[in-house]
Amino acid sequence: MSYAKLDAHCRSLGALEHALAILGTDEATHMAPGGGEQRAEAMASLSGMHHRQATTPEVGDWIEAAKAEALDPEQKTAVSELERSYINMTCLPSDFVERKMRTSMRSEQLWRAARPNGDWKTFEPALQEVVEMTREEASMRADVLGLAPYDALMEQFDPGNRTETVTPVFEELKSFLVEFLPRALDAQEQRHAKCPLKALSGDYPVERQKALGIAMMKAVGFDMNHGSLSISDHPFCGGVPSDVRMTTRYRTDEFLSALMGILHETGHGLYEQNLPKQWAHWPSGKARGMSIHESQSLFVEKQIGRNPAFWTFALPLVDRYLQENWSMEDLLPHVHLIKRGKIRVDADEVTYPLHVILRYELEQELLAGRLEVKDLPEAWDIRMQASLGISTLDDPKNGPMQDVHWPSGAFGYFPSYTLGALMAAQQWAAIVKINPDVDRQIAAGDFEAVNAWRRDNIWSKASTASTPEILRQATGEVLNPAYFIAHLEARYGG
Amino acid sequence: MSYAKLDAHCRSLGALEHALAILGTDEATHMAPGGGEQRAEAMASLSGMHHRQATTPEVGDWIEAAKAEALDPEQKTAVSELERSYINMTCLPSDFVERKMRTSMRSEQLWRAARPNGDWKTFEPALQEVVEMTREEASMRADVLGLAPYDALMEQFDPGNRTETVTPVFEELKSFLVEFLPRALDAQEQRHAKCPLKALSGDYPVERQKALGIAMMKAVGFDMNHGSLSISDHPFCGGVPSDVRMTTRYRTDEFLSALMGILHETGHGLYEQNLPKQWAHWPSGKARGMSIHESQSLFVEKQIGRNPAFWTFALPLVDRYLQENWSMEDLLPHVHLIKRGKIRVDADEVTYPLHVILRYELEQELLAGRLEVKDLPEAWDIRMQASLGISTLDDPKNGPMQDVHWPSGAFGYFPSYTLGALMAAQQWAAIVKINPDVDRQIAAGDFEAVNAWRRDNIWSKASTASTPEILRQATGEVLNPAYFIAHLEARYGG
Repeated sequence: MSYAKLDAHCRSLGALEHALAILGTDEATHMAPGGGEQRAEAMASLSGMHHRQATTPEVGDWIEAAKAEALDPEQKTAVSELERSYINMTCLPSDFVERKMRTSMRSEQLWRAARPNGDWKTFEPALQEVVEMTREEASMRADVLGLAPYDALMEQFDPGNRTETVTPVFEELKSFLVEFLPRALDAQEQRHAKCPLKALSGDYPVERQKALGIAMMKAVGFDMNHGSLSISDHPFCGGVPSDVRMTTRYRTDEFLSALMGILHETGHGLYEQNLPKQWAHWPSGKARGMSIHESQSLFVEKQIGRNPAFWTFALPLVDRYLQENWSMEDLLPHVHLIKRGKIRVDADEVTYPLHVILRYELEQELLAGRLEVKDLPEAWDIRMQASLGISTLDDPKNGPMQDVHWPSGAFGYFPSYTLGALMAAQQWAAIVKINPDVDRQIAAGDFEAVNAWRRDNIWSKASTASTPEILRQATGEVLNPAYFIAHLEARYGG
Repeated sequence: MSYAKLDAHCRSLGALEHALAILGTDEATHMAPGGGEQRAEAMASLSGMHHRQATTPEVGDWIEAAKAEALDPEQKTAVSELERSYINMTCLPSDFVERKMRTSMRSEQLWRAARPNGDWKTFEPALQEVVEMTREEASMRADVLGLAPYDALMEQFDPGNRTETVTPVFEELKSFLVEFLPRALDAQEQRHAKCPLKALSGDYPVERQKALGIAMMKAVGFDMNHGSLSISDHPFCGGVPSDVRMTTRYRTDEFLSALMGILHETGHGLYEQNLPKQWAHWPSGKARGMSIHESQSLFVEKQIGRNPAFWTFALPLVDRYLQENWSMEDLLPHVHLIKRGKIRVDADEVTYPLHVILRYELEQELLAGRLEVKDLPEAWDIRMQASLGISTLDDPKNGPMQDVHWPSGAFGYFPSYTLGALMAAQQWAAIVKINPDVDRQIAAGDFEAVNAWRRDNIWSKASTASTPEILRQATGEVLNPAYFIAHLEARYGG
């Protein structure tokens, strides 16, 4: 039976994915400094094995045969999602895949070297080469998938997301934000004038911050029997669903940045831990994509973790673990602090979408050939000035050189961040509608009702439907920026 | 060129070995408690991939073809060692390999369940089945390799070791020890009567013990850029040569057991770290086998770490890290403590070989069919009484049920432990002969000359010759128990 062959095939791929996930996490957390070269070689070799096994022509034959077999609905979905993934993996010729990998690795290395000095001129030709290859890639993917080129790129990160839906939503959001941001900043200024911002500084040993972080993780539903928290230079959530590896970094002079980072990664971790176990090795049992993943992390960070109700529950915990009795009035202005800035990763929830929309627009221009890399710094600057009122023309390091995505060849990824933020707000609104008591539950440290909704509507769905379809089934409507806009108005409108 | 194909083949196997080594270490050190099932499944699947790749018939063809190619001497050795390994891996039919794995896994599980209660009757039939399969295995290996059955088993762990050499050496050693042990115990009693043993107890926080351990590791030559020390239930040395993962366990009421464990594992780690890097992916570039590995760990633990000269250097470090000013008179009686006991893993360097020789004799009897499993408790007891003067007849848990080796199907492994101890003493003697100043160097914390000899004569040789041949080239003579005997006489003879 071909279905059984596919099941064994997925198990074998799953073992390689397990190894790659743990090796990748280990590299950032426990590897000896000199172990990197051998680790890179081993991981490249295992990735090659994975790609060869995943794209072997027999798999295509088994998929065709399995579609004619008597399968139950879940099995049918599993085969169809595997086919989607197989087509996405086999639609580029293997010599192109290798050429692209070499080009983007070289470009990323160049970027790492050139970025600290903002050396745009050195970096520019490498990025130009990546853009040209990405145009080729998008066109090949578009042909196979019957999609527009940019949609074919987004399809890798968020199956089903299309510019046709995303662009009007982003347009609406941008119009709102450009008007809203000055208003929200004014409102904040007035609040700070009345009640000056008080620094939340102190002396917070790493071990106590870690204990506080773990207490928070457990409270919001993270299962410490299937995961752990350690330290890395850049916080992430890695590992495998049965053993989720979360990391953070600590400063001993303040606790809020590590704690908010932990809450964010916990959102990713909850999603992974609650995927359907019996389908773990099939694509249909894996996390859907980048925007739903980000909706889960942002949900815990923004909808829960920056909700004043949450701090009714959390402040006593801070006091217990850090012996620091901050009041709500001390703390909230920090978790709701907004400001204009050049850097996406440092942005707050009001300004972040403007950074993303800028990239979303520019990468479509680049892809379509309406913009060339040499003109990127000017194009970036014009958009930054229009949306955030900041110039980056003399500072390419903090302009178009700030992100790893383009140098590493990831085009079509950026929209996921803001789509995640929109979906998180839409999910929250759907919960509040059927459970108006949710703030009171959260204030009491009771996350069960919120998590039950997320388990039923998001986590258990894994990759059994497209990104927009999961959102529609969960919330009863298609992507609607009104919920996010209302969320920002309520929290920052003054 | 077939040699190039073999090189790529070895690199691919090396990536899987890298993954298995790190996943195995991670399981014991950082894995979440609930991650075990998925980890076991992933590792079984990767092991299966490794076995299929390693034993694929093409490899045999490439080896044949490569032997006819123009290769330099190192390449010739590499191909010939790969051939040895290929023959050892392919000499059993794959259905037998699977059947044996199932049988020994079941038997090991039964052993884990039955051992705590010393339930020999439940365990006996499972072990009988393992013994019967091992007889079959030995006979098949013997046919292919042209060796006697027990030699064919030892060959897997220590290529080149033969009963023809080992048996007379063990006979001589046993005769000596049976006479020596009572004499050494008497001498110890007299020393303790004059100067009673003083407990080395105190309050030693784990972090300080770890810092002391790392200082010792560095001092004896361990490269912390290519390795680390963490905690596990059972100390081991795992990982890969570029990233050696050592572990230990701590008690906070005494420091000596963790420290001696660290020194032992450091010996394994030094060997791995100093293997020839350019051959890392070929069998000829890997550690030779169990007995040479054990000679390296025992060298650091016994020849260096229990040498009084070492403590001239080490006691001030203990004082610096633990704020505990023990004298040589306090400490040495502990590192030289000997006593009769039932348990191999708890034995000191005088009694340990008697435990090993008993197993070496019994497993040959079992294999030859001169002994059946049902008669093992009596046979074990008779030999324990004769060599150590202890009965285990009423205590099978601490008799033939104490070790994991037989239940898991590892016959022919036990001699490695004592061969390692003999070789360590012989290597030490070879060093002293050309470098009579070695004790003074060690007392000064200078391990460079000792390590230079070991690097040139053991570590850099990797698997380029058989176990006995490496010893012969290094020390100028074949295995000679006189050095170990002299070592025991000098240290424990009174």
